[in-house]
Amino acid sequence: MASETSRIEAFSDGVFAIAITLLILEIKIPSVTQASLSTQLMQQWPSYFAFLLSFFFIGIMWINHHRLFTHIRRADNGLLFLNLLLLLGVSAVPFPTAVLAIHLHSAGARAAAALYNGTYVAIAIFFNLLWHYSLSRKLLDQSSMESAAAISRQYAIGPLAYAICLALVWVSVTASLALNVGLAVFFAIPAQRAAGGHRDGQ
Amino acid sequence: MASETSRIEAFSDGVFAIAITLLILEIKIPSVTQASLSTQLMQQWPSYFAFLLSFFFIGIMWINHHRLFTHIRRADNGLLFLNLLLLLGVSAVPFPTAVLAIHLHSAGARAAAALYNGTYVAIAIFFNLLWHYSLSRKLLDQSSMESAAAISRQYAIGPLAYAICLALVWVSVTASLALNVGLAVFFAIPAQRAAGGHRDGQ
Amino acid sequence: MASETSRIEAFSDGVFAIAITLLILEIKIPSVTQASLSTQLMQQWPSYFAFLLSFFFIGIMWINHHRLFTHIRRADNGLLFLNLLLLLGVSAVPFPTAVLAIHLHSAGARAAAALYNGTYVAIAIFFNLLWHYSLSRKLLDQSSMESAAAISRQYAIGPLAYAICLALVWVSVTASLALNVGLAVFFAIPAQRAAGGHRDGQ
Amino acid sequence: MASETSRIEAFSDGVFAIAITLLILEIKIPSVTQASLSTQLMQQWPSYFAFLLSFFFIGIMWINHHRLFTHIRRADNGLLFLNLLLLLGVSAVPFPTAVLAIHLHSAGARAAAALYNGTYVAIAIFFNLLWHYSLSRKLLDQSSMESAAAISRQYAIGPLAYAICLALVWVSVTASLALNVGLAVFFAIPAQRAAGGHRDGQ
Repeated sequence: MASETSRIEAFSDGVFAIAITLLILEIKIPSVTQASLSTQLMQQWPSYFAFLLSFFFIGIMWINHHRLFTHIRRADNGLLFLNLLLLLGVSAVPFPTAVLAIHLHSAGARAAAALYNGTYVAIAIFFNLLWHYSLSRKLLDQSSMESAAAISRQYAIGPLAYAICLALVWVSVTASLALNVGLAVFFAIPAQRAAGGHRDGQ
Repeated sequence: MASETSRIEAFSDGVFAIAITLLILEIKIPSVTQASLSTQLMQQWPSYFAFLLSFFFIGIMWINHHRLFTHIRRADNGLLFLNLLLLLGVSAVPFPTAVLAIHLHSAGARAAAALYNGTYVAIAIFFNLLWHYSLSRKLLDQSSMESAAAISRQYAIGPLAYAICLALVWVSVTASLALNVGLAVFFAIPAQRAAGGHRDGQ
Repeated sequence: MASETSRIEAFSDGVFAIAITLLILEIKIPSVTQASLSTQLMQQWPSYFAFLLSFFFIGIMWINHHRLFTHIRRADNGLLFLNLLLLLGVSAVPFPTAVLAIHLHSAGARAAAALYNGTYVAIAIFFNLLWHYSLSRKLLDQSSMESAAAISRQYAIGPLAYAICLALVWVSVTASLALNVGLAVFFAIPAQRAAGGHRDGQ
Repeated sequence: MASETSRIEAFSDGVFAIAITLLILEIKIPSVTQASLSTQLMQQWPSYFAFLLSFFFIGIMWINHHRLFTHIRRADNGLLFLNLLLLLGVSAVPFPTAVLAIHLHSAGARAAAALYNGTYVAIAIFFNLLWHYSLSRKLLDQSSMESAAAISRQYAIGPLAYAICLALVWVSVTASLALNVGLAVFFAIPAQRAAGGHRDGQ
């Protein structure tokens, strides 16, 4: 059964690694024109911002997925399906990222940021579904039960926090994206520490 | 010999993971125009539908491939070749998906849906070839013989079902795609349960 | 040291899996025009031919790479570098494939087929370099020495055969591509059998 | 804990393998025009040069990453984060490569080469951060301490050497790229040998 989750992890790692590496393809290569290349490159800053933000989001999601599967010992069909739903969210990230990069300057900034944050709301919900399913179906390692409560608390914040980011889009796109950066940092911290525990996580 | 099939699985997992993640690249990024971004994004619904359908198809094919290889214990050259044929079908999916996305609105909807379903007919046939070859060459784990009959029954339905989808295209493209969604659900159910068994599959 | 070659194999598998799956991206998605979609799809047959040929080439190269590494037990820096050279050839395949697909109809057919076959000459040379280096540095499993001679004989044919294909381009592009198909079949057969041995390879 | 670093390695291998294989997508497929295909293909030499240089850079970075992780035995959150920073650099390579390929001929050559070398300065710094963090947090295998000094010496050269390449861009783009080729060769040599040791590394 260990081999069961190990092949799920290998497939998931593949999807995370590909999605994170495809992000760079969405940055436009400036063509040879009258304008200087440096100027053209600098005018593309929204693309670099969107690339960096999404890179760290996917990276942090990978770290969290990885942490999750250190606790999960058995797999069943429900787990396979919910993991697939999570991977759907991850593999979709290059699309809202590219939309945000292109429209951050323009009238579509609000809609682009809403799409971007909407994607993260969905992913945060999928993470919670995967986690609570694993808990309720007792797919976890017995020794993980202590950390389980801390993970549950940290994950519960996700959908709400991204929903706030999403709502904030109608107030200020800049504030919403700033909160996005803050959330990336928050989810990079391991659950026990974030939840006030003192075990050196991982 | 276990390591023999494990490297085939690793390579196959790679192809499945890449094909499923490349799907997102086929969704067009709306450019900055007079039209509102939200309107442009909503008008692209056929792209999202095609993306979702193909994502779950590839995901379910991966789950089935994974189930298959939990039964296969030995590999020979025929198996390598038939597995390659199956991967050919999987890696081709982004093409009919993009064609369907772009032409679902237009006069080419019928041809696009036919191409889409034709791809799945081919993949279903390749799955059957791989399975029956493994059976006939006794590449299976002895203990799998019980589940083998159930898998054979479920797989036999595939080529016929997708051929019906394909034929249905000339009656109604919508009905054909609705049946596609239904089949995705059917093949997500493990063979024993689908065939009326009661062992909790996987 | 087993783990040494296993990480090389994992990285190589990744490159093979990605290169084989990227091929589909080179097939153009017909846009919505006056022309019927079926006609447009059928006019793209050179793309499908090039896709299929390259898919099987990369697939067969993966099978051969996989066979090679069942014999290789130790890795050194030379092996890492020669393997990288081979992966360079593999990862380049989507480019000559796309050039062939687009120019097979046109005045550039000869140059396109020459580029395509030139790539395979290079890859065949890299395979020989990798193999002879492993032999001369005694990186092989002792028990593999028997098969080694058969592999050496089969591999020696590669550069010469593809050089003939390449030369044939100036006589007839069609004949050259037909010979390509034949060679794909030849290299799909395991070395012992191709060389007249009778052990059931793999 | 061994399994801890093994999943990091698998994910990193994925990113390296995808980044190295995506490079080919940046080479433009010549379209059917009046100009002969051979001429068009030859005029694209800057693309081939940039492709080859970046291919070997990523390949050599993979070899070095692989060598690094043969020494690293334990993982913590800092290592995960610094490894992610390194992968950010690796996954970005296709962008400066494509910019260099397109602008090497034109007025933007200096800016393109600066961007290209700037990327390598950043990657060299990230490699040093990862290495010194692993040293200071005692994440290394005990038996690796002897090689550690040699690796430290070789890595320390990186940021400085690429900074020189970067500065050289304002003197001569050609000289800068020539030094790039030289550095690729230098980092391909294992640390002990490069640092004057005599153990046959790897």
